[in-house]
Amino acid sequence: MKNTQENERISADIIPLERAALDRWGKGDITAFTDISAEEVTYFDTDTERRVDGLEALKQLYLPRAGKIKIERYDMLNPRVQAHGNTAVLTFNLIDHIPTSEGLIEEQWNATEVYCRFNGQWKIIHTHWSHMRSTS
Amino acid sequence: MKNTQENERISADIIPLERAALDRWGKGDITAFTDISAEEVTYFDTDTERRVDGLEALKQLYLPRAGKIKIERYDMLNPRVQAHGNTAVLTFNLIDHIPTSEGLIEEQWNATEVYCRFNGQWKIIHTHWSHMRSTS
Repeated sequence: MKNTQENERISADIIPLERAALDRWGKGDITAFTDISAEEVTYFDTDTERRVDGLEALKQLYLPRAGKIKIERYDMLNPRVQAHGNTAVLTFNLIDHIPTSEGLIEEQWNATEVYCRFNGQWKIIHTHWSHMRSTS
Repeated sequence: MKNTQENERISADIIPLERAALDRWGKGDITAFTDISAEEVTYFDTDTERRVDGLEALKQLYLPRAGKIKIERYDMLNPRVQAHGNTAVLTFNLIDHIPTSEGLIEEQWNATEVYCRFNGQWKIIHTHWSHMRSTS
């Protein structure tokens, strides 16, 4: 974080990558995130009993969700990048707006994405999704 | 992850640091983690409504927990370190055993700790705690 300009440059690379994956995911594309994840990726979310290790295991985890994801729109709140060398930690809160028969409902997330630059290309090496504390 | 020896050396530095903090925390020491966190630390847990930014904000978050933490023992499951340069992502599942009037209860966690080496000293720059999916 010492080099603010470098941090901003890396933010300008990574945040659009993440948004592009969120856009694809919201339309039901279950390869949106695995396409930009490294072989070594480790993964936690609210559906996992244990950490998921490796790209192949993550693809298998997503497989049953094919055709089941529909996110009308999302708000990425306050994204922040902490870049150190070829590693960058992207964190944000995410509000998903999900269409249901009773109208749009909200899902609120804490998101951690650790990116690493391999041969000039940023890939996710760790993902952690959890629900924000409900304020209602 | 290309350099397995380097990854193992860094694991041998970081995992004991994390265990020492967990040991202190379990005895009620709310400075256990802030003592090894960097000024820039970002933080999510199940009690946060939004990401917590910065060491001072994290200290404030922990303040109300003083004297209220009692963890009899914990199991750190399958810790893994992904080291890249001076950054290392430590992930594990944690089972806390908490004494209550009805005996020990378990709390199950997904844990992400991103460490960064500053002048030879490892500090946490990002933490994310969430509950594992209940299997019961």
